Amino acid sequence: MRDATGTRAVPVVPREMDAAVLHRPFEVRLERRPTPEPREDEVLIQVKAVGVCGSDVHYYEHGKIGRYVVDRPLVLGHECSGVVAAVGAAVTRFAPGDRVAVEPGIACGRCASCKSGKYNLCPDVRFLATPPIDGAFAQFIAIREDFVFPIPEGLSFERAAMNEPFSVGLHAVRRAGVKTGDTVAIMGMGPVGLLTVVAAKACGASRVFVSDVEPLRLEAALKLGAELAVHAGREDAAAAIHAATGGEGADVAIETAGNPQALRSALLATKRGGVAAVVGLPPEGRAELSISDLVDNEIDIRGVFRYANTYPLGLSLLADPAKNIETLFTDAYSLEETAAALERARTNKSGSLKVLVYPNGIGG
Amino acid sequence: MRDATGTRAVPVVPREMDAAVLHRPFEVRLERRPTPEPREDEVLIQVKAVGVCGSDVHYYEHGKIGRYVVDRPLVLGHECSGVVAAVGAAVTRFAPGDRVAVEPGIACGRCASCKSGKYNLCPDVRFLATPPIDGAFAQFIAIREDFVFPIPEGLSFERAAMNEPFSVGLHAVRRAGVKTGDTVAIMGMGPVGLLTVVAAKACGASRVFVSDVEPLRLEAALKLGAELAVHAGREDAAAAIHAATGGEGADVAIETAGNPQALRSALLATKRGGVAAVVGLPPEGRAELSISDLVDNEIDIRGVFRYANTYPLGLSLLADPAKNIETLFTDAYSLEETAAALERARTNKSGSLKVLVYPNGIGG
Amino acid sequence: MRDATGTRAVPVVPREMDAAVLHRPFEVRLERRPTPEPREDEVLIQVKAVGVCGSDVHYYEHGKIGRYVVDRPLVLGHECSGVVAAVGAAVTRFAPGDRVAVEPGIACGRCASCKSGKYNLCPDVRFLATPPIDGAFAQFIAIREDFVFPIPEGLSFERAAMNEPFSVGLHAVRRAGVKTGDTVAIMGMGPVGLLTVVAAKACGASRVFVSDVEPLRLEAALKLGAELAVHAGREDAAAAIHAATGGEGADVAIETAGNPQALRSALLATKRGGVAAVVGLPPEGRAELSISDLVDNEIDIRGVFRYANTYPLGLSLLADPAKNIETLFTDAYSLEETAAALERARTNKSGSLKVLVYPNGIGG
Amino acid sequence: MRDATGTRAVPVVPREMDAAVLHRPFEVRLERRPTPEPREDEVLIQVKAVGVCGSDVHYYEHGKIGRYVVDRPLVLGHECSGVVAAVGAAVTRFAPGDRVAVEPGIACGRCASCKSGKYNLCPDVRFLATPPIDGAFAQFIAIREDFVFPIPEGLSFERAAMNEPFSVGLHAVRRAGVKTGDTVAIMGMGPVGLLTVVAAKACGASRVFVSDVEPLRLEAALKLGAELAVHAGREDAAAAIHAATGGEGADVAIETAGNPQALRSALLATKRGGVAAVVGLPPEGRAELSISDLVDNEIDIRGVFRYANTYPLGLSLLADPAKNIETLFTDAYSLEETAAALERARTNKSGSLKVLVYPNGIGG
Repeated sequence: MRDATGTRAVPVVPREMDAAVLHRPFEVRLERRPTPEPREDEVLIQVKAVGVCGSDVHYYEHGKIGRYVVDRPLVLGHECSGVVAAVGAAVTRFAPGDRVAVEPGIACGRCASCKSGKYNLCPDVRFLATPPIDGAFAQFIAIREDFVFPIPEGLSFERAAMNEPFSVGLHAVRRAGVKTGDTVAIMGMGPVGLLTVVAAKACGASRVFVSDVEPLRLEAALKLGAELAVHAGREDAAAAIHAATGGEGADVAIETAGNPQALRSALLATKRGGVAAVVGLPPEGRAELSISDLVDNEIDIRGVFRYANTYPLGLSLLADPAKNIETLFTDAYSLEETAAALERARTNKSGSLKVLVYPNGIGG
Repeated sequence: MRDATGTRAVPVVPREMDAAVLHRPFEVRLERRPTPEPREDEVLIQVKAVGVCGSDVHYYEHGKIGRYVVDRPLVLGHECSGVVAAVGAAVTRFAPGDRVAVEPGIACGRCASCKSGKYNLCPDVRFLATPPIDGAFAQFIAIREDFVFPIPEGLSFERAAMNEPFSVGLHAVRRAGVKTGDTVAIMGMGPVGLLTVVAAKACGASRVFVSDVEPLRLEAALKLGAELAVHAGREDAAAAIHAATGGEGADVAIETAGNPQALRSALLATKRGGVAAVVGLPPEGRAELSISDLVDNEIDIRGVFRYANTYPLGLSLLADPAKNIETLFTDAYSLEETAAALERARTNKSGSLKVLVYPNGIGG
Repeated sequence: MRDATGTRAVPVVPREMDAAVLHRPFEVRLERRPTPEPREDEVLIQVKAVGVCGSDVHYYEHGKIGRYVVDRPLVLGHECSGVVAAVGAAVTRFAPGDRVAVEPGIACGRCASCKSGKYNLCPDVRFLATPPIDGAFAQFIAIREDFVFPIPEGLSFERAAMNEPFSVGLHAVRRAGVKTGDTVAIMGMGPVGLLTVVAAKACGASRVFVSDVEPLRLEAALKLGAELAVHAGREDAAAAIHAATGGEGADVAIETAGNPQALRSALLATKRGGVAAVVGLPPEGRAELSISDLVDNEIDIRGVFRYANTYPLGLSLLADPAKNIETLFTDAYSLEETAAALERARTNKSGSLKVLVYPNGIGG
Repeated sequence: MRDATGTRAVPVVPREMDAAVLHRPFEVRLERRPTPEPREDEVLIQVKAVGVCGSDVHYYEHGKIGRYVVDRPLVLGHECSGVVAAVGAAVTRFAPGDRVAVEPGIACGRCASCKSGKYNLCPDVRFLATPPIDGAFAQFIAIREDFVFPIPEGLSFERAAMNEPFSVGLHAVRRAGVKTGDTVAIMGMGPVGLLTVVAAKACGASRVFVSDVEPLRLEAALKLGAELAVHAGREDAAAAIHAATGGEGADVAIETAGNPQALRSALLATKRGGVAAVVGLPPEGRAELSISDLVDNEIDIRGVFRYANTYPLGLSLLADPAKNIETLFTDAYSLEETAAALERARTNKSGSLKVLVYPNGIGG
């Protein structure tokens, strides 16, 4: 990276750094910790921007997600980007000063899932901010080189950090097999849903229909390229999508809301022979679905878990300034304010889209 | 076909024939009807063997299935085979005397579904024994040439008729992507489930695990090549399958029972990254499923509706005498006894597997 | 269609019409023929615009292509669009006055190829302007309804006629598996190559590299979205593409030139694990290829024959005015001038891209 | 493993071992070398059986293969199996005494090819017996744990070593998309071709047709399940295969001979819409092919380079004693006789199929 004077700025690596640490629900403390030493194959990164994810908020509020329990202090945050501060001896692709995005799930590379290309299913993955792996609400993190990616010229740290939720959208769109000319329905317009709109358009969707219950989110979806935004509290989303497609239904539906009713709508909105992809987890973990529609219409329902092989493509797509994802950035906090950032994301669903934390200073 | 004297026997075509006609639930009458005239592109077939399907029984008992209502007299029966009796002027592949199996869903060949290879989703399909299309409980039927297939040497009419439910199994196995070495769980051991065992083995499954609640069916499954038969009323099928696979789960699970609990078991029995195919329709049309498992394990659930492009392969596979599907043939009736055949199938689920009707005489 | 007064104009159907008929090489005569009567399932179309294809020129010059011989008078022309003039009794999707594009290969809909979705491989296809099927250099043609497609609002007859060569490009791009973010090399910038550039961009190609030996064509490619245009007579195309991709090669290469050297370049330009699709037929029908590269780099070479299931998508893509394919339209002729049009296409490869014939009047 | 007394035998690890080292063409010397120390993630294996591969013979005869040059002493041999003698500290799946097969290409697990499931295309792969990586003609080798696989009960070391060339066949069959009921033509009946017959049958091929010019090999193919064996020096293989398939051609053809004429035959033997896979490298590296057939018949030609994700499946298939691959084992040599083994494989193509070397004693 080059600073205002055109000089490439290489971060100074202090012996200690600040990190925002979750001790128990609602208790996040700023602490001093030794700056991590990169291993031979790791890159040390000065963290510049971190998005607050729904999972961070869930750990912050409940101290666990399913079988993952915060039973000792944990640093949250996994949607991140920054500047290379130092590299291990075996690192070949990066040098200090490089601007980079971090793919936060470090897969083993050796199990059957990894070897078959589905490394998102690696049972030994080390995923940032998933207990017991510390995340990115810290000034520095060390990441294995092959999960670090250069940020294209002109792409900001905030946008680069968004490559993480965008990857979920891209993976959903790929798993769903969206192809040029397809009509795509997307349920749930939180940040993942909104970035799935961008992913669907990038993968050739001719028309995107969305639903949510928050007007702010529906408006953002329209800005990002959706053609039809249905307020699911006031209108039947599946019916509206059938009306918009001459009764045929959408080629693909993608559920990102984690809402059983939205999932039923997604299934009903899918055309005969089409695909419904499921990203969102309902709070109770289950939903009653129409098996008649699944069978008679020979629909595929495809679960979507994280992502694999999305980072270079995602970054190159986000580098297109026409994809105006800045509309997502509603709130900015410093590392000291991490608790406030999490609280904001938790409580302001009508007004906030993506809350960002800047571990080395806002605008730094 | 050649008769006992080695002469090829060509059926005589009378002006009138017998047909078993459903007038209302539980009321089937043997009637005289004009023998159909084959159109230019049709083959007239003297029907030799017809299997009674669950859908026949359902129409017999309830007078409808979903939106398909028997509102005028209907001939049931669609799993059938016979001998060519006459051919239309444009028919090129058949001559009187040929032994043939009938694919009972005559697709239009011109819609988008047909043109893309998914003719099972053709909205204009004419499916035998689905209102208002008459079926095969009759001495003769006329079928468009391209849905008629030669029976390989040595394959009996009964086995050839079984190519219809076998096609459901083959299509399920293909939709599920079963490949050499896969482990496959199949829930529900009615005739379709049993023939799905045969299909899975034919498509390379190394191990097949099945479940049902009828001992007769579980025994039949073991005879057909299943390795493990779980009595689902006494044991947890998903747990048994996990135990048999070292905790990993099956590569593929296929639900043919139309039972919500069996469907839940199928989903739970599926390994991470695996596929669960759904053939069976629950009576209520819906089921509550674990979305957490679907998403966290990135499973595909694939609906299976009828079949496409299965007939030649199915017949060639069934021609292998080592596939001892005779174990399915528990009951035989003449055309006059069609009502009794339907009643038998309806009431004897513990003792009957496949009930057959012989419209031109048992053993004829 | 509506004429200048806003009235929907329905063509008058005369008893006789004009047609341009090829009798022997270089001999095309304008003749009077009875206007065709549409069969029950056919649409009669007043032909508005027809593109001259390389195959038309080849029949005009040589009287045959491979095993297809013009041994009796033949009407050429198959890239066409027009207005519905009359419909057969069973036609449901069209009415006189509708603006339509014609998919010129009428597949049987009943063979194994058709039923599996590969109807371009139908052995019984009736393809316009392929002996003995007459083509579209005539005032009217009758086409089976399911191969007729409505032209979207705002799309001109000329552009709609281009959906035929565009379909070749779309099918090539699909067969090659082009996906969002891919780099694509296309050899040969005749009309098919140029429309393949459009197809590749429409299917997500991030960067398109092309080669040809005609400057006019290379310029047209750049206008249509190519990033790099290599003059293959002056530069090594494969080397230039490797240079442009950091030594990696293109994800996909597509050969449309029918030139053995271009095919070798395509193969060499393809990256490890990539795909080379072949559209063009070399004059001698064969080419010497590097099998070492094929094997060591585990490349797929995929033959591309015509197209299937491209028409609705192609028309909707061409309806986007940003796809400025008008750059292709270099020459316009009336039906009387069909011989001149063929001669122009034959002799002016440096100056003409697509020559058009208007059977019912230029600008009509 | 258990010895004759039923005791599990754990190999003693000496400080030094014997290895057969290639110094220059035709010069192989038995030398004493330090026994390798397994790294933290490696398994030390006492080598029991090693197949001589065509590539070993090529290095022995020419000192190089393409860009791979033996410019310092090299141990050949990569088709191997043995007994675990020691394990590194981080190894979890193996213990001394385990019988194991070795997948000889150690991929990095971190590059784009590895992450997408195509680790056979890893640019940083370390492949045994490919300069500068030493191979298995030695008493011990150390291999990264994830490329070591347990040998199923009852599978001999020789058969387990054959999982390497069998993997080539399995990968070819998968790349070619062989499915249940397919007809498959295989050109070239060296060991890879013969094991491809086994792989094709295991993946559902209903009929396998083969060609070669050595009667011994054709006979072996018939023993392994081929239906038709064509002597390519006396008969036109493509014509014979068309005759055997009613003029249609084979669904899939696989070329393993590395012979341009065999490759042309493979392409001609492939049916419309079929796939021709290429395993063999012609000596000159290139071949003239019919592009007309490729395009008009819309054929795929797919290069096949080594294999990925085949080992567990291959071993489980070879564990079936009905696959009588012992027919391959024509010659056995001790480690001291490695030069003789290579010479035998080089000179006895009419009489030898697979030559084996036993680094720790024949029958040991």
